[in-house]
Amino acid sequence: MLGLNRTRDAALRARAEKVVPSGMWGHLHAAKLPGGYPQFFHRGEGGVLWDVDGNRYVDFMCSWGPNLLGHHHPEVEEAAERQRRDGDCMNGPAEVMVELAELVVDMVGHADWTQFQKNGTDATTTCVTLARAATSRRKILVAKGAYHGAVPWCSPSLLGVTAEDRAHLVYFTFNDVESLEAAAKMAGDDVAGILVSAFRHDLGFDQELPTAEFARAARRICDDKGAALIIDEVRAGFRLNAAGSWESLGVRPDLSAWSKAIANGYALAAVTGADWLRTAAAQVFVTGSFWAGAVAMAAAVATLKIVRRDDVPSRLAQCGLMLREGLETRSRQFGVSIRQSGPAQMPALLFDDDPDYRKGFVFCNSMLERGVYFHPKHNMFLCAAHTEADIAAALDAAEHAFSVVAAL
Amino acid sequence: MLGLNRTRDAALRARAEKVVPSGMWGHLHAAKLPGGYPQFFHRGEGGVLWDVDGNRYVDFMCSWGPNLLGHHHPEVEEAAERQRRDGDCMNGPAEVMVELAELVVDMVGHADWTQFQKNGTDATTTCVTLARAATSRRKILVAKGAYHGAVPWCSPSLLGVTAEDRAHLVYFTFNDVESLEAAAKMAGDDVAGILVSAFRHDLGFDQELPTAEFARAARRICDDKGAALIIDEVRAGFRLNAAGSWESLGVRPDLSAWSKAIANGYALAAVTGADWLRTAAAQVFVTGSFWAGAVAMAAAVATLKIVRRDDVPSRLAQCGLMLREGLETRSRQFGVSIRQSGPAQMPALLFDDDPDYRKGFVFCNSMLERGVYFHPKHNMFLCAAHTEADIAAALDAAEHAFSVVAAL
Repeated sequence: MLGLNRTRDAALRARAEKVVPSGMWGHLHAAKLPGGYPQFFHRGEGGVLWDVDGNRYVDFMCSWGPNLLGHHHPEVEEAAERQRRDGDCMNGPAEVMVELAELVVDMVGHADWTQFQKNGTDATTTCVTLARAATSRRKILVAKGAYHGAVPWCSPSLLGVTAEDRAHLVYFTFNDVESLEAAAKMAGDDVAGILVSAFRHDLGFDQELPTAEFARAARRICDDKGAALIIDEVRAGFRLNAAGSWESLGVRPDLSAWSKAIANGYALAAVTGADWLRTAAAQVFVTGSFWAGAVAMAAAVATLKIVRRDDVPSRLAQCGLMLREGLETRSRQFGVSIRQSGPAQMPALLFDDDPDYRKGFVFCNSMLERGVYFHPKHNMFLCAAHTEADIAAALDAAEHAFSVVAAL
Repeated sequence: MLGLNRTRDAALRARAEKVVPSGMWGHLHAAKLPGGYPQFFHRGEGGVLWDVDGNRYVDFMCSWGPNLLGHHHPEVEEAAERQRRDGDCMNGPAEVMVELAELVVDMVGHADWTQFQKNGTDATTTCVTLARAATSRRKILVAKGAYHGAVPWCSPSLLGVTAEDRAHLVYFTFNDVESLEAAAKMAGDDVAGILVSAFRHDLGFDQELPTAEFARAARRICDDKGAALIIDEVRAGFRLNAAGSWESLGVRPDLSAWSKAIANGYALAAVTGADWLRTAAAQVFVTGSFWAGAVAMAAAVATLKIVRRDDVPSRLAQCGLMLREGLETRSRQFGVSIRQSGPAQMPALLFDDDPDYRKGFVFCNSMLERGVYFHPKHNMFLCAAHTEADIAAALDAAEHAFSVVAAL
C-alpha cells in the first residue's frame, strides 16, 4: 500500500460528524466506498479531481454524471458568467430560458415541449404526475430495482416510506417482455404510464442495454392503453445519444426526465414531452424557487451546443472502448475474471466470484492509490475532457491493481 | 395608463409558448398576475429589477424570497466566485459544507445537526420522511390550505395526485388549538409529526402570525405523542429571526425546513434537526445530484454571516414598517380601505370588498407603471438592499395607485 495522506479529510470528517448525521448523506457518502476513499474534495479541472489533502485523481465518476465536458469548461463557464452579470434568480425567467427550451426541443427526438427543474427526482416525479393527470389513471409500471430518485414513491430505501406512497406502482423486470405484459395486464384499464431507465444500471449488478423487442413492447403497450411511455434519462442523458437514448432502437417515448449532465455540473433538470401531454403539462402545478434560475440555463445552452457540435457521445464511446479493451487485456494477463457491462460511455466493472465486492474494493483502492478514481459497484462515467493519456494512466494503474486482486 | 413597452416580452412569450407548455410553469407564470406584468427579466441589481424591455422596478417580491441581501451582493458573489475557481459539483462535498453546517447549527436555536438539498420541497419532504422514520408512525398533521411544496403529497393542485398520496395527512386550522387537538386525537397513536408554516401565508388571504398559545399547543402535543414538530421555514426563514421564526414565542421545533433566502439566490435548501432525530437522518436515504454543490454553500456561508452581522431581520422590519405606515396613511387619504397583514419583513396588502382581487390588480398595475413591483395576492418580501429612497418611491407610486383604486 502506498497509503495516501488523509489528514485533512479525517479532520473534516470528524467535524462533519458533529453537525451532519453520520457526516454525509446519500450517494456521495464515503462510507459506501472502499476505506481508502476521500470524502472531501478541493478542486476539479477537466477530468481530474484533487481531494482536500492534495491527492490527484483521474476521475471516472465525473461527479456521478454531471461532469460531462470537464470541470471549468471555458465555453460553459463563459456563458454562465455572462448570464451571472445580468441576473440569475429573478421574478421570472430570463431570455435564455426560451433559447434553452428551443434547443432542447430541437435536439431531443420525441420532444414537442420542455419544462425545467433542479433535481433528477423533480423530473421523474413530474413525469409520473403528468402521466396521471393526462390519462386520469393511476398505475405506473416500473422495473424492479430501478433507481428513479430519492423520495418516498421511488427511494431505494423503505425507511420513512408508507405503503400508500407506492400503492400504484406495478413492477416488471427490465428487458423481460412477458413480465412487462403481465404488469400491464394486472394494472388493467388503470395504466397511466410505463417508467423505465434508458438502460438498466442498477447498483451492484451487470448493466443491460434495452433490447429492441423490449423497447417496442413498452411502446406498443402504451399505444394500446393510451398511456405514457416515460424514459428516465437522468443518468444516461446526453452521453449515449443526444436525441434520446432509445433513438437507435427506433422507439420514442412520450415523456423523458433529464438532469445530471445537462448543464455540465450546474443544477438543472428537464422534462421533455410529446404534444398530447402539453395540456396536462400546462395544468399540473409544478414549481420550485430556483427552477427559473438563468445561470444554470445559460450553462445548459453552452453544454448542449458543444454536445451536438463535437458529437460528445461518440467521443466518450471511443474513450470508453479504449478503456474497456485495455481492462479486458490486463485482467486476462493476470488471470482475473471480470465482467464489463453497459454502454462504453458509462462503464461498469464487476469481478466474477465476488459476491461481497471484496475484489472490487481491493481493486478500486489500488487504483485510487495510483491516482485513478473508479467505483466498485456503480456504473462509472466518462467525460469529454478525458484524454488518451488519462486512459493510459488508468490502464497502468489497473495493471498493478489486477495483480493485487490476483494475489488475494 | 402610462403603458410600459412590452415588445421584447411579447416576442419571447410567443416563442416560449411553442416550446414550454403555456409558456411558463408554476408560481412565476405571469398569467397569474395583472395583465401589465412582464414575464421575462433581464437584470437584477440590489433590490431593483429590469425586465427584458428595459423597464426598471423597485422589486418587492425579491424573486419570491431568495433575494435577501440584494442581487449581486459583493460579499456573497466573491465567496461564490472563490469556491467556483476550485470546484462546485464534485465526487463529494468541499470543505465549505462543514463550515456551512457548523454555522447553521450555531445560528438556528433548535438545530443539533443539518443536511442540505436544493428545493424547499426537498426539505419539507425530507422532514416528513424523517419524522415517519424516527417514530415508525404515519400521520402528519398539516394546516388546511398551507403551502409546503409542489409534489403530489403537498401540491396546491390535485391534478395528477392520487388519494393515496395524501392518505396520512390530517388537517387542522392554523392558530386554532381546538382543531389541532382534534386532528391529533383523530390520528391517535399514529402521529409522526405536526408540519406547520412559520406563519400563515396562504395565497390570497390575510397573513397570520402564530399565537403563543397555538405554538405551545403544537409543542405539547408533539411532546405527549413523541412526535416531531416540524416548522416550514422555507418562505420565512432568515427574514423574521435567524435563529428560527418561533424563537420569540419560546417554542422550538424538532425539525425545520429552510430554503429560498439561505444563499441569496443560489439554489440551496436545508433541514435542521434535534438530536433525537439524528439516527433516523443518518439512515433515511435522501440525495440529489447537485446537493453537495459547493458554490451555493459558499454563497450560503457568506449570506448567513451577513444576516447575523448586520441583523438583517431587524433592518428588514424597519423598512417594512416604514412601507406599512406609509401605505396606511396614503390609503386613508383616498378613502380606500386596505388590510395589511403578516410580519413587516413580508408584507401582504389586500383590499376590503375585493373578492375577485380586482382592486388589487388595478392597484398593482398602477404601481408597476410607476416602477414598483408589488403582488396583488401573495405575501411580498423585503430585502436588505432596499433603501429609504426605494420605500419613498414605492409610497409615491402608491399615492397615485390608491387614487386610481378610489376612482373605480
